[in-house]
Amino acid sequence: SEGHSDGRGTRHQEAMAGAASTNVPNAEYPRVYPDLRVEFRVKAPDVQKMEVQVGATPKVAMSKDAEGVWSLITPPIVPGFHYYYLTVDGITVDDPAGRTFYGVGKDSTGIEIPEKGADYYLPRDVPHGEVRERWYHSKITGSWRRCFVYTPPDYDASAKTHYPVLYLQHGGGEDETGWIRQGHANFILDNLIASGKSKPMLIVMDNGYAVRAGTLLEPLNAPGGPPGTPAMLQKMMAMTAAFEDVVLQDLIPMIDSTYRTLPDRHHRAMAGLSMGGMQTLQVTLNHFDIFSYIGGFSGAGASFVFGNTEFDVKTAYNGAFSDPAAFHKRIHLLWLGVGTEEPERMHAGILNFHKAIEKAGIEHVFYESPGTAHEWQTWRRDLNDFAPRLFQN
Amino acid sequence: SEGHSDGRGTRHQEAMAGAASTNVPNAEYPRVYPDLRVEFRVKAPDVQKMEVQVGATPKVAMSKDAEGVWSLITPPIVPGFHYYYLTVDGITVDDPAGRTFYGVGKDSTGIEIPEKGADYYLPRDVPHGEVRERWYHSKITGSWRRCFVYTPPDYDASAKTHYPVLYLQHGGGEDETGWIRQGHANFILDNLIASGKSKPMLIVMDNGYAVRAGTLLEPLNAPGGPPGTPAMLQKMMAMTAAFEDVVLQDLIPMIDSTYRTLPDRHHRAMAGLSMGGMQTLQVTLNHFDIFSYIGGFSGAGASFVFGNTEFDVKTAYNGAFSDPAAFHKRIHLLWLGVGTEEPERMHAGILNFHKAIEKAGIEHVFYESPGTAHEWQTWRRDLNDFAPRLFQN
Repeated sequence: SEGHSDGRGTRHQEAMAGAASTNVPNAEYPRVYPDLRVEFRVKAPDVQKMEVQVGATPKVAMSKDAEGVWSLITPPIVPGFHYYYLTVDGITVDDPAGRTFYGVGKDSTGIEIPEKGADYYLPRDVPHGEVRERWYHSKITGSWRRCFVYTPPDYDASAKTHYPVLYLQHGGGEDETGWIRQGHANFILDNLIASGKSKPMLIVMDNGYAVRAGTLLEPLNAPGGPPGTPAMLQKMMAMTAAFEDVVLQDLIPMIDSTYRTLPDRHHRAMAGLSMGGMQTLQVTLNHFDIFSYIGGFSGAGASFVFGNTEFDVKTAYNGAFSDPAAFHKRIHLLWLGVGTEEPERMHAGILNFHKAIEKAGIEHVFYESPGTAHEWQTWRRDLNDFAPRLFQN
Repeated sequence: SEGHSDGRGTRHQEAMAGAASTNVPNAEYPRVYPDLRVEFRVKAPDVQKMEVQVGATPKVAMSKDAEGVWSLITPPIVPGFHYYYLTVDGITVDDPAGRTFYGVGKDSTGIEIPEKGADYYLPRDVPHGEVRERWYHSKITGSWRRCFVYTPPDYDASAKTHYPVLYLQHGGGEDETGWIRQGHANFILDNLIASGKSKPMLIVMDNGYAVRAGTLLEPLNAPGGPPGTPAMLQKMMAMTAAFEDVVLQDLIPMIDSTYRTLPDRHHRAMAGLSMGGMQTLQVTLNHFDIFSYIGGFSGAGASFVFGNTEFDVKTAYNGAFSDPAAFHKRIHLLWLGVGTEEPERMHAGILNFHKAIEKAGIEHVFYESPGTAHEWQTWRRDLNDFAPRLFQN
């Protein structure tokens, strides 16, 4: 079958294939075919066994030719960004031919599979905002922390304009670089602002790991991928309590005193993916006085599944959903999303959460990303749908 | 000998050793001992041969114990930042336990060896500037390009202050992220400004690769490390001509129209390391009307050695050094540096350049970094000595 061919493909196919945009300079492989199959080729004559793993799919064995070149052509791969690795005689490493991105608790090679017709996350010929690396001191953690701040294209030139702020969080095993490098949040907003679909806004991307000053450092950002176990969830919930205090007591005051913001709840949103989605609901639903726009990307709701607890609309989040009228009076937007191809328990958790609050009369947007998994293409689509709905009230 | 022991070291040594600061979270190895020996440990039972290479030193074989754990303790390693790799059954890869940094034409694992008593490049408890990712359109290349801009701590708050600008370039095989991630230029300036040693300034770090619109893309940023061959040099010189036009026609106008600069030659400096040093001399010495401060870090002069041409003080750089009085009238500072442990030809090239212009009566600063090679510790020291001398006229 074409799925696991070990050949080079025909000349015609080769001519049509192109080096992945995520390759290092001058690396011809991996190559992406027009039908989204991907060809890997790695010279390693002394290696006895080589496998490749893309995203959450299983490892697949490559085959070696007489010159010691290992190769594999995959079946068509779902468009978007995927972490991938080589396993070389049993040890899993980054592909020397690929750029790396911080995810799964380490710098991991990534491959970008283009989505036909989708350029909303690519750098287009429009005005570009800045992404600023900002260090700030946290009283809660007793340390200097790093966040990134997207400022819209006209920020410096419009010296009297004040802007609303979206706080946007990464997932487990990732860090504050993820929404820019993997997610292209800056290009998504550049494009949305240029087309008039989104209001100009700041985006603050903080590090989601926080440990209170004087307490023992827990291995919270250990390798291991997206949250999938009750133990991992428990750690995340403990960390979220510290992170919640960082956001409220350190981050927001720093942002509002450093940048030209509109420092009130009507102009403050928070969203996050996976772990960041759980954190977002924890922070925002406990602080209706601080936030009025909420986005849960592949995270909100799953906590109940992985925590093995029942979602109770009356008691969850200190009763935030128990009074729809009161909720609607305070919250301008609740937005929930999940990819159709996410792991079953995660998908089910979010779907059940959506249905429960729908039944309870809580207005919200529910978006299912067709064909995408617990990966960045889902979250790029989420942001592209979520951001235009912000600050329109 | 202790140099290539394959053991774990004593309990006492283990207790004193610490995970390298450049490790990924929760990775215990590589560990750095107080005497700067480094212990590597990697579990890979099915691998037949594993080697480790740190910086420009040769590959060293590791040894495997009964549990399939490969290990090695190196001799003491020179303080500073070093790229390093594992070679696994003949294929060279990044260490899964280390953070990666763009260098040698790809994302490469790096290890930080602390220098006793040196905290000038560490994030201290002082006000921090921002590092801004800025995209701009280049007429010369016909493309969007990315640079980073360091703004000093008081930039946003001092809305009427205008600042001098240092243009600071990376080396061959690196990119515009190098001076921040490997070099810590932002922390170096934060510390210098906090202590009053440096004037507050902007630092612009551009991508040093440039290809004119409509011309064929040459593999200029291919892997291969620092420049070392006439062919490589020739490519770099051709590229430098395009880069020179980018700097003068695209970058400087964009910076001066976007940021609050002092847009004249008295407040404009350029420096660079290795390839960036060669580019700096090419750009600045051809444009005395644009720049008046010049820094060549491990680059200036080496071009004559690798290009196999004689340095002639009368004709080099269109005669820029032929009239010392005219030179001194225009140039406030010429600063040259090299590490004592750099490759012999490079060290000799820069030393000869220094001696030739000294003999010709051209005032300049010449700095030799003791004990360091063609690596980032040399260039951190260079910047720390160079920056305080800027814009004091």
